[in-house]
Amino acid sequence: MLGCGTVGAQVVRLLTEQADDLTARIGGSVELVGVAVRRPHRHPDVPAHLITTDAAALVESDVDVVVEVIGGIEPARTLLTTALRAGKSVVTANKALLAEHAAELFAAAGSSGADLYFEAAVAGAIPLLRPLRESLAGDRINRVMGIVNGTTNYILSAMDSSGAGYAETLDEASRLGYAEADPTADVDGYDAASKAAILASIAFHTRVTAADVYREGITSVTPADIAAARTLGRTIKLLAICERVDTDGVESVAVRVHPAMIPRSHPLAGVGGAFNAVFVEADAAGSLMFYGQGAGGAPTASAVLGDLVAVSRNRLVGGRGPGESAYAALPIRPISQVDTRYHVSLDVADRAGVLSSVASVFAEHDVSIAAVRQRGRANDASLVIVTHSAPDRALRSTVDKIAGLPAVHDVVSVMRVEGEEP
Amino acid sequence: MLGCGTVGAQVVRLLTEQADDLTARIGGSVELVGVAVRRPHRHPDVPAHLITTDAAALVESDVDVVVEVIGGIEPARTLLTTALRAGKSVVTANKALLAEHAAELFAAAGSSGADLYFEAAVAGAIPLLRPLRESLAGDRINRVMGIVNGTTNYILSAMDSSGAGYAETLDEASRLGYAEADPTADVDGYDAASKAAILASIAFHTRVTAADVYREGITSVTPADIAAARTLGRTIKLLAICERVDTDGVESVAVRVHPAMIPRSHPLAGVGGAFNAVFVEADAAGSLMFYGQGAGGAPTASAVLGDLVAVSRNRLVGGRGPGESAYAALPIRPISQVDTRYHVSLDVADRAGVLSSVASVFAEHDVSIAAVRQRGRANDASLVIVTHSAPDRALRSTVDKIAGLPAVHDVVSVMRVEGEEP
Repeated sequence: MLGCGTVGAQVVRLLTEQADDLTARIGGSVELVGVAVRRPHRHPDVPAHLITTDAAALVESDVDVVVEVIGGIEPARTLLTTALRAGKSVVTANKALLAEHAAELFAAAGSSGADLYFEAAVAGAIPLLRPLRESLAGDRINRVMGIVNGTTNYILSAMDSSGAGYAETLDEASRLGYAEADPTADVDGYDAASKAAILASIAFHTRVTAADVYREGITSVTPADIAAARTLGRTIKLLAICERVDTDGVESVAVRVHPAMIPRSHPLAGVGGAFNAVFVEADAAGSLMFYGQGAGGAPTASAVLGDLVAVSRNRLVGGRGPGESAYAALPIRPISQVDTRYHVSLDVADRAGVLSSVASVFAEHDVSIAAVRQRGRANDASLVIVTHSAPDRALRSTVDKIAGLPAVHDVVSVMRVEGEEP
Repeated sequence: MLGCGTVGAQVVRLLTEQADDLTARIGGSVELVGVAVRRPHRHPDVPAHLITTDAAALVESDVDVVVEVIGGIEPARTLLTTALRAGKSVVTANKALLAEHAAELFAAAGSSGADLYFEAAVAGAIPLLRPLRESLAGDRINRVMGIVNGTTNYILSAMDSSGAGYAETLDEASRLGYAEADPTADVDGYDAASKAAILASIAFHTRVTAADVYREGITSVTPADIAAARTLGRTIKLLAICERVDTDGVESVAVRVHPAMIPRSHPLAGVGGAFNAVFVEADAAGSLMFYGQGAGGAPTASAVLGDLVAVSRNRLVGGRGPGESAYAALPIRPISQVDTRYHVSLDVADRAGVLSSVASVFAEHDVSIAAVRQRGRANDASLVIVTHSAPDRALRSTVDKIAGLPAVHDVVSVMRVEGEEP
């Protein structure tokens, strides 16, 4: 095992506590022969003779399986590539690595016939990659949409209930242990984007890397956005959305991570705290939902152990798990060309003709309006517009132009809208 | 393929429409070489040269995989056992067969090294068995609870919204195609019990057959039960519940199917119509939920195709899917010894001392009361009692004795209670 943090410690515990069950399920015993860590004294629960600081030597020693829970690109990338080329099966929870270098890792695995499993990399304990890779292998997946980051989900839920601002809520989340000391990967959406890339690759049999994912985090979400959502019976969630887009028979793949308003009646609206939930839409299967704990030591370790049983069985029985499936090689569609829907909330002058001038900007950009709500108050008025779906580029240009209209005092909130009408 | 009803027709369609995708995913092509049916003229969509009425000859011909969508025990049992012994992999949607003869089928598969997959047998399109068998193979599952029969769920939902009686609602369900001409398997809980047996076998690594499952259907659910549930903020669902029970360190397995009141706020309460949803509780993974379409041609065919890809890959790559895992061999605990909670609604005489006499019966049986609601009206009064959990046998004896009390005019509703308090 490489690394021994929150997840690794739970893997060690479960390997020990459930040794007999694992042996029965695998048909042979699993022996933990080494744990590579940076600071040996920090792991009092791991038998001292297993601890080493030389990860490379451990990988090159006589082991069958390498479990990697270090995270990050290097040294994980080099270590796992070496292991796979040498025919050692790999179980990893490393979403960043998979989202950037899956092709390289699969190629290394393919060269030796080794297994590469990574259920723990997306949505923690929720069995999601195996269902997508295997159970739905005979179906055609059209859309995967979900909440895949617990930290941002905690912060957005807290902002929704308290009305507090983002910075203040982040501080509290850090204090309570829901956000890391450096929360960038979570709040800027990098973590969710890595997971979206992995999900899209599997769902659409196409190489999708983190760089292909359009990404907006939650740092710009304001109490005004939350209040606007509430007024419309909606709430704001950071969503990862992977879509198959068909334009006149030409298929492409669009993958994006951004905050979005969803109806409070939508099943994802009720997903709180550290829970994750993912919807999958497939041609034959229809709508499926998977729900569970998306992070944490024990839940993630559960996913690691499931993979460990699979690769161990494969070594004993002589089989192999699925390799990379990128045969479809669909092009990536940039966000500018993806159809989305916008909610726009404006402070405008309270005089006749304002709605008409705003509406004409939408019309100019070929954006059709689904709903308008106008309310006068004191010297100005509020104008809320929800559009039908239109190319994201057209929606952005519309909002930019509207912001410059003399009658528009302030753009209070601009937010994409997902899910059905409330 | 054996059989070609609603599911089979969709399997044929998907095999044809997605032939290129299946070939890419498997790494080799799948050819449908025969479809055994009873009435050849009823399948105009299947190429005539594939149709045969001789299922046994088809199974014995030179095929690699047998897909069975006939249903029922015979001839499926003999055909599949023959196929498996001959080393042919089997994909089946046959819950009744798996719930009664899984051991025999697995033994036949084991003797030749063939694969036996049956994802479609439980909860249609929802990837459920593969996650339980494989993703959670490194975890310890404690409970599986869910709605696994669409017909009864449709009827109970309809009774809940209309206030109509069972017989009347069943008639309408039949007219609308939600119930079969002979609805016995659904409404008496046999279908759900088969699924519960399969789920429990996998979850607890123990042989559980349909005969081990305590089973109550929905035919006795009355409008009074529905109304009583509503008064308490609950609704009635037919639940399949598989539990690991630990009594002073001695483990056993309890499996039951019966109607139960659950809080309207419970995620299962919102599962409507033909949808299925299953909760899984595991030591490390925590709570997981799986949701999707539990029946229907295309959704079930999706599950069949996923299994077909898996067994086909295994044949090409040389691996094998999981065999029977019954090493834990836990004893089955009868319902009488399972802890449950009861809701009891009574019409009683409106006079002092009634509650006391009723409560003393509960006390005699060591059943602790969680909540009481008493309401006077005209000459009699209603008394609603919800218990804490107690052995089912004690609860039944309590109810029997209470029904005989002079002050009790009528036992309006007795129903088990599941889920947290509303």
